[in-house]
Amino acid sequence: MKKLINDPLKVADELLEGLVEAYDGQCLKVGSRSIVKKEIAENKVALLVGGGSGHEPIYHGLVGTNFADGAACGDIFAAPSPDIVLEATQAVNRGRGVLYLYGNYAGDVMNFDIGAELAEEEGINVRTVLICDDVCSAPPTEKNARRGIAGLVPIVKMVGAASQHAQSLEQLEAAARKVVLHTRSVGVSMSPGSIPATGKPTFEIDEKLIGLGMGIHGEQGVCEIPMTTADELTPQMLDLIFRDFEEDTDVDNLVKGDEALLFVNSLGATTMMECLICLRKAKQCLVEHGISVYGTIVGPLVTCQEMSGISFSITKLDDELKGYWDPPCQSVCYTKL
Amino acid sequence: MKKLINDPLKVADELLEGLVEAYDGQCLKVGSRSIVKKEIAENKVALLVGGGSGHEPIYHGLVGTNFADGAACGDIFAAPSPDIVLEATQAVNRGRGVLYLYGNYAGDVMNFDIGAELAEEEGINVRTVLICDDVCSAPPTEKNARRGIAGLVPIVKMVGAASQHAQSLEQLEAAARKVVLHTRSVGVSMSPGSIPATGKPTFEIDEKLIGLGMGIHGEQGVCEIPMTTADELTPQMLDLIFRDFEEDTDVDNLVKGDEALLFVNSLGATTMMECLICLRKAKQCLVEHGISVYGTIVGPLVTCQEMSGISFSITKLDDELKGYWDPPCQSVCYTKL
Repeated sequence: MKKLINDPLKVADELLEGLVEAYDGQCLKVGSRSIVKKEIAENKVALLVGGGSGHEPIYHGLVGTNFADGAACGDIFAAPSPDIVLEATQAVNRGRGVLYLYGNYAGDVMNFDIGAELAEEEGINVRTVLICDDVCSAPPTEKNARRGIAGLVPIVKMVGAASQHAQSLEQLEAAARKVVLHTRSVGVSMSPGSIPATGKPTFEIDEKLIGLGMGIHGEQGVCEIPMTTADELTPQMLDLIFRDFEEDTDVDNLVKGDEALLFVNSLGATTMMECLICLRKAKQCLVEHGISVYGTIVGPLVTCQEMSGISFSITKLDDELKGYWDPPCQSVCYTKL
Repeated sequence: MKKLINDPLKVADELLEGLVEAYDGQCLKVGSRSIVKKEIAENKVALLVGGGSGHEPIYHGLVGTNFADGAACGDIFAAPSPDIVLEATQAVNRGRGVLYLYGNYAGDVMNFDIGAELAEEEGINVRTVLICDDVCSAPPTEKNARRGIAGLVPIVKMVGAASQHAQSLEQLEAAARKVVLHTRSVGVSMSPGSIPATGKPTFEIDEKLIGLGMGIHGEQGVCEIPMTTADELTPQMLDLIFRDFEEDTDVDNLVKGDEALLFVNSLGATTMMECLICLRKAKQCLVEHGISVYGTIVGPLVTCQEMSGISFSITKLDDELKGYWDPPCQSVCYTKL
């Protein structure tokens, strides 16, 4: 794979420089590898996101209007160091505390937790909510062990909106837990991306198979199935989400008359054409279940280089969550009027 | 390449169905393969775009608020038929005429021209402005023969804004000609996309070469150069744009103190990471030339399936063009607050 980069070891730093330019003055680089909104209201409860680079436009593309206040960015497929987390925390803090919201991966959890300890030593209150939307990575009874995948986009969008009016860190934490609880995703992988520094694939999969529920780096899913059509695969994937809402006693079932957000994500090389064809079938499946789609997101927003694959994320809505979805938002990753 | 599709011959129809869903009620499918805004103001001078499918999210993703009123969509890499153009024209017309704005490809020109004749027979006034921003496809003296490439995104955005207040079809045509004249692009190709119906590559290029100025389907460009770094390639590409502004006597040169839009497009599999690294270098080059970036677009918006490659588009601005850039716009392809 030909990659338009310079020094492979400087990729994460250079893409962040580009990202700051893409923000047209809305955001600044802070410390060694964080990006932070230029203007954060005094007394605002702050929202910090972050994770490894290489998945652009997330996470560092999710900073902006009615979005996160900052992002701590790691190296390619690696968690941001505790120092980076601390620098970002200091930069977004306005004295009302900082909510950490990021995907549930061991390296991220370790480094954000150390960052939180360092911040607490400086008197900054920190709470953490992990994104764990991938229903294929653990059963409902162990849902806190699940990985975070593409559901992070609607989650950060909604928690970003909630953070504009949160009266306390505890209130924002509660809102974030509710948004995460109501967002579930299923992904498939068809071919791997490559590691920019080595050109090596991030995982291996047979040319004729699809990894159902496979994680975005190739982590184990439900099973491998033969390559099939958009219309056969889409209901199979959505059924895993429907069944998960059914089986999880912590959340109301997705039932007839419900409203939901639908996000169809491309992992990279899967084209917008394919996403739209799958979106069409997904909408049909939801309508058959009596669920109406309140809002849609589609595109390559949570990627793993030129990996091919797709995921569906569903957020079950109520009036509170609709209130977090409705406001316009602006960032490099995703903008909504 | 594994593709998540159904019947390869129904791809263009099915992706359009998905696109209508992605618009969340803003747009409707009209006739056999057009997409049109649900609400178009009475007496509005209409703007119609279009072209072959397979390049998602353009062109049919460019319909929306302060964007085009409709798009006529062809089959994969094929122009929309005259019938489709006519159906779209009828649907967007509000009695003040319709401007056709699309990329300069022979098949599109032929079919849109026939569509225009059919529309004129029904008493609908039509004018046409061709997008021909690819500086590598013909010298400045023959610039009307140039291909249309990624510059279409800022062009349609600006002409869409202009169309909201245009007093006549002639006024909108003049605005569009000005926007096109001030927008120039250069692209490179590194590896081909594939044709969904056959799985065959759209062109061939050596594993170690880059096609400088190569078109998005593999059309001839300036030359083939060895694969190189982002920081070496970016100035080479931008220099072709700077030189073009210099040599073209129909347009003022891009000089110190100017403001410009910068769009870094991925042709598909080229990652957002690479786009951001190139954007960073492009911004440095522009600053060295004393040109300030007034607005930025970045991402895989004009694609050719899983093709890898990148393009830069520059729009030289004045107060009139800034007025077309500033308004918010919303579509599936591109949204700006």
